[in-house]
Amino acid sequence: MSGKPSTRPGGRSARVQRSVHEAVRELEAEQGRDDLTVPRIAARAGVTPSTIYRRWGDLRELLADVAVQRLRPETPPDDLGSLRADLEHWAVAFLEEMSSPPGRAHIRDALAGDPDGDNAGRCSAYAVEQVETILARAAGRGEPAPGTDTVLDHLVAPMMYRILFRPGLLDPRYARELVTDLLDHFTTTP
Amino acid sequence: MSGKPSTRPGGRSARVQRSVHEAVRELEAEQGRDDLTVPRIAARAGVTPSTIYRRWGDLRELLADVAVQRLRPETPPDDLGSLRADLEHWAVAFLEEMSSPPGRAHIRDALAGDPDGDNAGRCSAYAVEQVETILARAAGRGEPAPGTDTVLDHLVAPMMYRILFRPGLLDPRYARELVTDLLDHFTTTP
Repeated sequence: MSGKPSTRPGGRSARVQRSVHEAVRELEAEQGRDDLTVPRIAARAGVTPSTIYRRWGDLRELLADVAVQRLRPETPPDDLGSLRADLEHWAVAFLEEMSSPPGRAHIRDALAGDPDGDNAGRCSAYAVEQVETILARAAGRGEPAPGTDTVLDHLVAPMMYRILFRPGLLDPRYARELVTDLLDHFTTTP
Repeated sequence: MSGKPSTRPGGRSARVQRSVHEAVRELEAEQGRDDLTVPRIAARAGVTPSTIYRRWGDLRELLADVAVQRLRPETPPDDLGSLRADLEHWAVAFLEEMSSPPGRAHIRDALAGDPDGDNAGRCSAYAVEQVETILARAAGRGEPAPGTDTVLDHLVAPMMYRILFRPGLLDPRYARELVTDLLDHFTTTP
């Protein structure tokens, strides 16, 4: 329903987005999410409720937009000198972050406000970006490596499936085992 | 929040569940889901709103319970005589059903009403049941096969991840390729 929020930095549009996102985060921290309403968010952000409805459509879409923003990685993945080490390190951190209670809540919000898959697609694009950084480094080192889609299918997807559908089955060892399976079975020389 | 709906057949509790679920499905078909409210559902089902609140907690939890019920497979997977054929057939049907607009809506509902993972866990349990039926047949035929968790990680999870996060990338060939990768890489003799 809602248009893609523009992110031209410095413009009025970007200022509105920043203050509304900040209002959501503050109110959520202060009062919990069950009491969030568009009028309260608007009052805190210093905009009119109709500004929010016009831009985001409804509360669910706004929460999805805020959630996706929070799932955005802040830094590129660490470079530990080998593909295996980079993937293991990244996967363990991804599993830990996404399976934490706030991580889960953000994933659920991103999926909920999402009849056409836009917000969830942005989450997946973040993972693609991180994986591609790791794979580009491996290529630079001349290491054999799987392709991006293979990493998504056999490393990211299993972790996300367990986080969403089988939350009892998660520990860092699981992430490492997936990396081992991935590199044992799906590696092709460059 | 809500307790697990009891399913003792024939009891009052089972009758209430049946009529409330039916009311949700009818009203959704007649008026679309955006107009669903607990009082309307209660009126159609012939129960009081407080019966619904007491049993399900809120509308979101009720919709999640209905969604999970609809995702329940009605029959065991077809037996086509070999593990590969059974898995391909089941995976293609799973992908088609879950990626359809109603399939997606039910998955989203199941995940939304789900702070503790109960409803999503029931969805996953359905997949486990179907996969285990297929694997038990393979064992009966003496075929080498992967384990249940491996099928979930490398066949079910990638399909579900694409359905939720990368909806552009789905066709029956994708399901078949995953089966090929799974059987090529993760098969152990019985």
